[in-house]
Formats: sequence, structure tokens, C-alpha cells
Amino acid sequence: MGIISPGSLINSFDKKEANSVSCSESPLNSASIEAAVKIIRSIAPDTRTETRNIDDADGYILAAPVICRSDMPGYDRSCKNGFAVCAEDTSGANPNQPISLTCSGTVPIGASENTRIMKGQCMAIFTGGSLPVGADAIVMSENITLNNGLVRIDYPVVPGENVIRRDEDGKEGEMLYPSGWIIRPQDIALLAGFGICTVQVWSIPVIGVISTGPELVPADARPAKGEVRETNSYLVSALCRRMGAIPRRYGIAWDGSGELSKMLASAVAECDAIIISGGSARDDRDRTAEIISNQGQILLSGLSVSPRKKMIIGKIRGKPIIGLPGHPASVFLLLTLVVTNLIQAMKGASEHTLLKESVIAGIEIKAHPEREYHIPVKIVEGKVFPLSRKAGMIRMLSQCDGIIHIPMGSQGIKPGDMIDLMGLTLLRSPSQNC
Amino acid sequence: MGIISPGSLINSFDKKEANSVSCSESPLNSASIEAAVKIIRSIAPDTRTETRNIDDADGYILAAPVICRSDMPGYDRSCKNGFAVCAEDTSGANPNQPISLTCSGTVPIGASENTRIMKGQCMAIFTGGSLPVGADAIVMSENITLNNGLVRIDYPVVPGENVIRRDEDGKEGEMLYPSGWIIRPQDIALLAGFGICTVQVWSIPVIGVISTGPELVPADARPAKGEVRETNSYLVSALCRRMGAIPRRYGIAWDGSGELSKMLASAVAECDAIIISGGSARDDRDRTAEIISNQGQILLSGLSVSPRKKMIIGKIRGKPIIGLPGHPASVFLLLTLVVTNLIQAMKGASEHTLLKESVIAGIEIKAHPEREYHIPVKIVEGKVFPLSRKAGMIRMLSQCDGIIHIPMGSQGIKPGDMIDLMGLTLLRSPSQNC
Repeated sequence: MGIISPGSLINSFDKKEANSVSCSESPLNSASIEAAVKIIRSIAPDTRTETRNIDDADGYILAAPVICRSDMPGYDRSCKNGFAVCAEDTSGANPNQPISLTCSGTVPIGASENTRIMKGQCMAIFTGGSLPVGADAIVMSENITLNNGLVRIDYPVVPGENVIRRDEDGKEGEMLYPSGWIIRPQDIALLAGFGICTVQVWSIPVIGVISTGPELVPADARPAKGEVRETNSYLVSALCRRMGAIPRRYGIAWDGSGELSKMLASAVAECDAIIISGGSARDDRDRTAEIISNQGQILLSGLSVSPRKKMIIGKIRGKPIIGLPGHPASVFLLLTLVVTNLIQAMKGASEHTLLKESVIAGIEIKAHPEREYHIPVKIVEGKVFPLSRKAGMIRMLSQCDGIIHIPMGSQGIKPGDMIDLMGLTLLRSPSQNC
Repeated sequence: MGIISPGSLINSFDKKEANSVSCSESPLNSASIEAAVKIIRSIAPDTRTETRNIDDADGYILAAPVICRSDMPGYDRSCKNGFAVCAEDTSGANPNQPISLTCSGTVPIGASENTRIMKGQCMAIFTGGSLPVGADAIVMSENITLNNGLVRIDYPVVPGENVIRRDEDGKEGEMLYPSGWIIRPQDIALLAGFGICTVQVWSIPVIGVISTGPELVPADARPAKGEVRETNSYLVSALCRRMGAIPRRYGIAWDGSGELSKMLASAVAECDAIIISGGSARDDRDRTAEIISNQGQILLSGLSVSPRKKMIIGKIRGKPIIGLPGHPASVFLLLTLVVTNLIQAMKGASEHTLLKESVIAGIEIKAHPEREYHIPVKIVEGKVFPLSRKAGMIRMLSQCDGIIHIPMGSQGIKPGDMIDLMGLTLLRSPSQNC
């Protein structure tokens, strides 16, 4: 009568995993998120490096240390508006016995060796001005009074006071940034200030994106009964871009192993890593695992987190292959917690820190102390609630505001508890908070 | 003798501000950050809207609500692997008196009106499958036993159990997203699932970037004595990009009012808003304020925050003009706290939420309860410390990790206190944490 029991289908999945043990190294059937991250980082291939203009380097990661090319600022510099003096000349000054110096003018921009003061002289100087020869300190303009062209000084200064030394901002040969540094806007400004206009960075990895599932139709099609529009390639692609990678879509593998096998081979040839997401309707991961085994090997095929996630990590010709489940909330969670690490590792970062924000629990979440939980949550009126996880509903995607972590040993969370919300995109639309 | 006292220069700045009162509406000389944000939001011009493919819409803001075009999923759908039944047929089932149904096959993808079950029948169905005609509930595969082609059911189900109704994910005509929503990767996936492949969004504003200061040389030049490389246009441009705006650089205004005046006129003609940053060496804001007054009007010319910041907000022909100080830490702070709001408002968002992270204070920061503080801080070994602010040092730019806020009424912060770190870029390089 041709009954395919969904139950038996799931069992056959485990058998295939068992088979793959014999043909390659033993894959983990059940790993923690931490172990999955370790595996995924261990197989991250080096991507190319490239030279980028600093203006186009925000978010890139340095592939080589940045070295200071010359002393900075390169000359002794005033860090106050005031008067450049020889500190010795101010010795013993006090309000009852002030010292008066002759002002010989204002320090011009581009002061040369000819700009100098003699004993008993001073020069007006602006913040940033180059100290004239003979001067070694600045008296702040607040601490002087002008009197008939004479500058009256009430308090002494010591050599170097209010002065930035010629190499105080940076010494020639000194390391400004180590390799692995993630470039931010403020770093770009610093590099410009040091005259470093290009940097050697890791290239952006290209990630092949494949969706599987016979029930999937493209987003611009009208699904018939039993069909659904393909959404995971959009989620994977947009999150890849947020993580600083370039997604390359290979489309939907409809007809099972033949098509997926071909797509995967093309993607392996053209990309640095490949992410395959399952359809939402059926469990195609058994076939995905089989196809990966045929072309390479499987290293992990399940996660021991609650709620249980099915995730495959494998490699084909040195390229990491990630198999994700079909449920968008699980895809969101696994991309954020695990795949981010792959992309960061390929970009040369030794560690990835997710964005974190302290939030208030809106509801009790009970936990088994012997389990670890990673839960996608929504924010309602500033409090977090777990997402409802009715399989196949995609509306909850707009409520995927972040992930909370309940570690092993915890009994769970009570309403009002402060917890960390983690994510790649914690910016929220105003209407989400009210 | 031609002494220009830096002190007198500063005083003349205040006089010019006083003059500008008579020629336009009264500018605020001293406003809180909150008041500055209010002013800046009030003058944000509407920018253009455009239609974008959802794949290129991450971070954009909806300029119109998104409406659901048809019921979703559009058919009654199983959310479990199991057997589609008529709930009535399972009534009264219990382990001692199980009910057996005849399985008439497996629900195919694209089930049509011909896929139906009769009384006493059931069909195997996968998660996502379309319910056959005659079925109104799903018995999970865990709760059945197969026996000679018969499906034994131990517990009854109620109508709708394990079923997503045809309009449960979305009703035709229902609003999916309001105008003003900030699009994230998960929203892109949802839009794809609803068959919405393009969205109407606010265009990215173009921000003119001008640097002033006679001591400035371009980043690729070698500064002479008293000169420094221009860094603020790099900081402003990179932060504009992070805030989702397009920076357009107009270069350095070297020779004072003539050049700045021309640059500003060009920028007003070509951009949606203009940011002018001061040089680090001299206070050019007096001239900047004068030039803005000549072409338009000044609305604010100072902030009452500690440490005191000089900031100009003006407008010329409806375009907001922002004058920032020269010190990079102040530029970083004012861009993050104030200018972000301008860009968000121009992009159609009614509010901007900065990224926030709970951090531990590494040192005591005393505060005067009658003042409000916004302090740029660095992170060392996971704790925050205020940046040293020796004017003209640019090295501290790489330590600008975020901003902390000490509100009015607070006596300050003690070591070990938890405080919020705010910023646009809280991702840190690994070496910053160790």
C-alpha cells in the first residue's frame, strides 16, 4: 500500500549516519554548541588576503600587524592654548611674585627652525602648535595676564607640561594594531592620522547557499497546496552579509539527491564554504548527509542542545559544508551561534563576540539542570519571551529578536530576572518596544 | 607686536554667537544632549523613497506599511509528521480501547481536491503537508502503531490539533510591518515567505563631509612641523556608513572663510545634510558659525554636558548643517549620540536605539549631581575606563570602545558598578579583551 511512515524515515537517518562511520573518521552524533563551534573553527580554510583602502576596510580583519612608520606627532606639540615658555624661566613664580616674559609673537603653522624663543621670552601658541626652539612647556592661557605686551605668569610649569612629546602618540617601528584586529570607524581615523591609507586584510569569504525540499517554490511564485515559498536562502544570505561574507545562491534542490549532488559540486568548486538548509516540510537531512558523505566526510550530525537541533558539519575537498534544519528559528539560532564562528575564523578572527544586551525575562522558563538551552526569543514591551515554535509558521521570524542562553546547572529563569540577549542584529524597530 | 591671545579668540566666538541672535531665530547656546537630539530631529528633511529588492534591503527602513497579499499558508497544513485524520474518528480512543484507521496512502506534495479521506480512513502526512479533504487534525507519528496496514491510535485528537489553519500565519489585507520598521535579515526571510520581493524604503541620505583647519594635511601627505594629518573626515565617513548613510567628502578648507563658504554651498546643493568638523589645532568654530549664519541660520551652538562640547546645529536652505569640534573623541561621541538621530530621522525611523552592553566600571568616576555626563571609554580586561583626553593625541582613537552615560543626580560610578556601554560598534577585537 506504499505507506512511508515519517517515524521510519527518521530512523533511517540514524542508520545512514552509522554507515558513514566506516567510510571516514567517526562523526559526532550529538555535540554541544561549544563542541560544534570547535569543530567548525578547526575546519575553517584560510581565505585570500587583499590590500584595501582604509575607507573601504570597515569590518575587515587585519591579515598583518600595522606598524607605525614614523614618530607621531613627529614634533613636540602643544596640547593647550597658551604660551610656549622655557620652564626654567617660570621657576618660583607665584601670585605675589609673578614672573613676566616678553612675548615675541605667535607660533605660525609650519614653524621652522627659525621659530625660537630666547631666555625671558615666550610665544603665543594654539593647541596643536609646534613648540618653538628653546621652549619646553606651555603655560595655559587661563593662567596668564597680558600687561603692556608682557605676559605675567603666576605659577611655574615643569618641562614637558601641556606638551605632547614628538613620539608620544607613536614611535617609529611600534605596532599599532596586531594581526586579527577587527577594523572599526575609529581605527580607520587612527590609520589616516598615521598616514596609513591601505591595509592588508582577509578577503570576504564567499558562502554558497543551497535550499533543499521538494515542497519549496521560489519567493516570487504562488505556492500550490502543500507547497511553500523558499525563505531560508534569504535568511542565510542576509545573515551572511551581516557577518561580513558574500552569499552566492545556488537555488532550490527539488528532485532529491541528483540535483543537490550537482549543485553541491558546483558550489564546492566556486565558494569558500557551503550552507545547505532543509525544507520546512520534510526531513531531507538524511539525503543531505548521504550526499556530503559521497563527496567528502561528515564530522558532526546533531547537537545535544534543547530543543534538539539537527545540524550537519562536514567537509568536501577542504571546504566546510554546513547542513541546517528547515525551521527558520533554528536556522537563525544555528547561524548566529555556530556559523558566525566559521565566517569569523575564515576572516582571520580568533574569536567571535556576539552583540549582547541585558534584558528582563517576561515569563518563567524552566530548565533541566543537566541540559543546556539556547532559545530564540522575542521582545514585547522591553521583556523577552520564547518564540512559539509551531513548525512551518514563518510569521514568528519578525519576532526573532535574539537568543538567550541557559547554561548547564541552571534551573531556569524567573520573570523579572536579568538575562543576556545575544544576536547579530540587536537594533529594534521602535514599534517593537511599545 | 601682533599677539593673538588664544583666550581672546575664544571670547570672540561667544560674541559672534550673540550677534547671530538678531539675524535669525534665537539659537540655544547651551543645550543638553536630549535637547540637541530634539532640534536635530526637528530639522531632518525627508529624503527620497525608493523600491528595493528585499535582498538589498537589510538595514533600510520601510517607507510604507507591508500588507499581506493573500492568506498564509493558504491551506490547512500539518505542523507534525504523523497521520491526517477526522478528529471525530479518534473520539474515545485510549490505550485499552485503541481505534484503528485504514491508511489510504501518503499525502503527496501539491495535494489537490482529489486527495481526501473517507470515514475510518487516515493518510500519512509530513510536516508541512496539506491536509486532505475530510481531515481536520493530525495524530503525531509518536502516538500511533502500525499493524498490518492499520494505524492504531491510543489517544483522541481535537479538530485543528497539530494543524496550521489556512490563514493562521497571515490574513489577506493584514499589516505585516508598519512604516518605519528597520529591516533585518529575519524580516527579509519573512517577506520572501509572503511572496513580497520588493519593498518601498527610505533612500540612504547623502552626507557632505568637510574638514576645517589650516594645520591639516591629507592622510597620504607628510606633515611639516605644526601640521597634522586630517583624520576626522575618515571617522565621520566611516561612522556615516555604519549609520546607513553615504558620506561625500569635500576635502579640507584650509584658507578660512572663503574656501569653507564655497565648499559648504556646493555641499548644500548636492547633499541631504552636511557635517563640518574642526581642526584639532585651532578653534575654527567661530568662523564656521559665521559662515553658516551667512548662508542660513544657527539653531544651537553649544552643549551643557560635561566635559563641555562645542557643537553647532544650523540649517541652510532646509539642509541640516552640523559643526563638530576637532577632538576625535568628541567627534565620536557627538556623532554617536546626536548625529545618529539625524540620519535615522532622515531614513524615516522615529527613534534610534544605540547598541547597549552591560559592563563593569574599572575605576571611580566622580560626578557632580547637577550635571550630566557622556564619557567615551575604553575597555581593558573587560572593564571600562574613561579615555585620557590629551588634546591632539589620536592614538586613543583605537581605545574608543563606546560611551557611558552618568545622568543628572548621580554622584558618579564606583569600581565594580555595572553600567551600560553604548555605541554603534560594540564588536571588539579579541586582543582588546585580554
